[in-house]
Amino acid sequence: MNEPLRIGIAGLGTVGASVARILKNKSNSLSHKCGRPIVVTGVSARSRNKDRGFDMTGIEWFDTPTELAASANIDVFVELVGGENGAALESMHAAIEAGRHVVTANKALLARHGVELALRAEEKGLILNYEAAVAGGIPIIKTMRESLAANEPSRVYGILNGTANYILTRMEHDRMSFADCLAEAQRLGYAEADPTFDIEGYDTAHKLAILTSIAFGTQVAADEIYIEGISNISLSDIEAARELGYRIKLLGVAQRTATGIEQRVHPTMVPLGSMIGQVDSVTNAVGIEADTVGSLLLSGPGAGGDATASAVIGDIADIAKSLPGHQEAPVFGRPATELEPYRRAEISSHAGGYFIRLTVHDRIGVFASLAGRMAENSISLASIVQHGAVKGGESETKTVVLVTHETTESEIRAALEAVTGDGHLVSRPQVIRIEPAG
Amino acid sequence: MNEPLRIGIAGLGTVGASVARILKNKSNSLSHKCGRPIVVTGVSARSRNKDRGFDMTGIEWFDTPTELAASANIDVFVELVGGENGAALESMHAAIEAGRHVVTANKALLARHGVELALRAEEKGLILNYEAAVAGGIPIIKTMRESLAANEPSRVYGILNGTANYILTRMEHDRMSFADCLAEAQRLGYAEADPTFDIEGYDTAHKLAILTSIAFGTQVAADEIYIEGISNISLSDIEAARELGYRIKLLGVAQRTATGIEQRVHPTMVPLGSMIGQVDSVTNAVGIEADTVGSLLLSGPGAGGDATASAVIGDIADIAKSLPGHQEAPVFGRPATELEPYRRAEISSHAGGYFIRLTVHDRIGVFASLAGRMAENSISLASIVQHGAVKGGESETKTVVLVTHETTESEIRAALEAVTGDGHLVSRPQVIRIEPAG
Repeated sequence: MNEPLRIGIAGLGTVGASVARILKNKSNSLSHKCGRPIVVTGVSARSRNKDRGFDMTGIEWFDTPTELAASANIDVFVELVGGENGAALESMHAAIEAGRHVVTANKALLARHGVELALRAEEKGLILNYEAAVAGGIPIIKTMRESLAANEPSRVYGILNGTANYILTRMEHDRMSFADCLAEAQRLGYAEADPTFDIEGYDTAHKLAILTSIAFGTQVAADEIYIEGISNISLSDIEAARELGYRIKLLGVAQRTATGIEQRVHPTMVPLGSMIGQVDSVTNAVGIEADTVGSLLLSGPGAGGDATASAVIGDIADIAKSLPGHQEAPVFGRPATELEPYRRAEISSHAGGYFIRLTVHDRIGVFASLAGRMAENSISLASIVQHGAVKGGESETKTVVLVTHETTESEIRAALEAVTGDGHLVSRPQVIRIEPAG
Repeated sequence: MNEPLRIGIAGLGTVGASVARILKNKSNSLSHKCGRPIVVTGVSARSRNKDRGFDMTGIEWFDTPTELAASANIDVFVELVGGENGAALESMHAAIEAGRHVVTANKALLARHGVELALRAEEKGLILNYEAAVAGGIPIIKTMRESLAANEPSRVYGILNGTANYILTRMEHDRMSFADCLAEAQRLGYAEADPTFDIEGYDTAHKLAILTSIAFGTQVAADEIYIEGISNISLSDIEAARELGYRIKLLGVAQRTATGIEQRVHPTMVPLGSMIGQVDSVTNAVGIEADTVGSLLLSGPGAGGDATASAVIGDIADIAKSLPGHQEAPVFGRPATELEPYRRAEISSHAGGYFIRLTVHDRIGVFASLAGRMAENSISLASIVQHGAVKGGESETKTVVLVTHETTESEIRAALEAVTGDGHLVSRPQVIRIEPAG
């Protein structure tokens, strides 16, 4: 049997404790699979005296992640501290400078500093693995970075945030409002006290930025993402969607277009009968469309201590199987020095179908006017659904749902501006993009 | 830039030609990703003079796969000859003895000789990769062998044969008979002239045997699989299934039970609203349930020249990134010397729900008699659907569909034997197992 691989874990929250526990409980099976034992030799966490469900005997304690990272008694530094700067960033740099392979589950860190860390790790011939950073237990990083070597992806998209997907699923399933579902998600621990990061799409955006870089060989551009969250999705939208054969999912989508690469996060209509349309609750899914393989879709748990630990340990096992000093695969699938600058395709040039829900005054000529505005902007309608008149204040109102054939965002915006100017609308139009999905 | 990795391809059918063409057309991008050029230096195929869409200049020709395998001018031998014995087996052995890494897409070969090849390759420190052998372009082998190192799977299941799935999808979608769909599949090139291998489940069984071995760490046991094909599935079954909220798919399923490991291939009821229920036409999918990660489902193209080539080239790229003589990962996820004997769980002890379609004489007391026989065998019924009486010969007949709660195969068989003995049945009962599926 070869020398053990010595692991230092920084951060012993749910994921870190799970990684440590599983490495211990499955040490036999892991050493068979990897050809050498994997042993936790050092840890660092906020509070030292806390029962985390594993025996700390023989494991060295470090007061800070950075001290652990620099320790001579570890071969791999596992960063589970979190945060896009501070201790996470400092300790990752310290580990790489000290010649340690690194594993992280930190999407915010990678979205912000991924390229600088990759450059340094690759320069030193070290492995930087981060399967757990995107879509939890789903092996999407390995798939894109290794399995799809023969492919140039044209599109990558996914349900990347369990909290948002839980809320949308609950709204539809139990006919509940967004606010009630959010409260329920908070009660169950699926949403934070401040849920902004999850429901407004920022978490999805971080993960998308990483996927974009691997898919298209471009530098990570987390600030170049068009983002809309799900907080203005109503039960009416969900029910109208269903009636028309769609479900609403918060997707992150990156695709190559003639003008650059689109990166967008927004509520999206996906076909009711598609695979991704069945991805419910906290489950995540990632789809890839590529020239050689065609379409792939991977689904699984996007979060949770054990599911995330599964990905972290897969990363550690890959390092255990590699020879010391041998760089397995470039961090973003090709050397970081060769990543191209990201060229943004603006959302205004986005081409696709649209779902538009309008609440209009129930007057003669409204329909004709709406249809005229669409036609003026070369927008072809796939379906029109009109819901019964609702008594409201001085006049009656109606809900009209339009589904368009492929058009562009700028045409939609121009048409809706004109419709708004015509004075028929009672409230702001609801616009949801339609995504062809596997 | 490092030394090129020299590839010998045996078999230049659709997949082989696609591999050679893509390795050439994408040589730049592949050498960036892998850190060294990948070059085809030798080929072998049946007929030498045939335009296969790539330039053969500078590529050495060999009259037999075995001569190519033994050539000193290749580092990796890619076996795309096919067949479970003969030239495929002989050339794989020759390649390993000559110290070449090997890549194959040949499920029949691996189902039959996988362990013997793995033992020899591992003894010599060589890589044997075979991503394309199971589920075409879906990275299921890499996922199970590498990403899920921290997992002990409890069940693995999948739609592993595109021909059978195409036929079942077409039957439902276009309300066509099995025979008409098979003829259509043959016309489109999705089914062979002799379709037995695909529609009777043997191809699925080969792939399942490989997945079982990786999932459970057991020796490949392709002869220990309970197999039923789809040739006796009628449009009536499909329509009755739909009415009850199911779709019929040909699944391969392996699961750990108290008495051993079940391996079975048969038409299966999957929930209409499940992800796998949306896997249509020639698309494949594989689901895994495991202790650490939970449930994963991967779907994508199960066949086709380019999709299969994508998997083959992913395997080659992994070898390109490894150091010479360095063994990446054991062939079946743990060393072949440590694979445990396969212990078969008999189909009679299978536990699950059942769909039973009976055509009965429309007589007084038939229902009571049926219900009594089920109760006698401790079978609890989840639903009963009775279809209108059909005029037939001397008496009228009725179709009765029963869906059971979880019971065992032996109880179902005993109950149906008793029902048959009661003389109420017009024809043999149709029995289709229900599978909980993601």
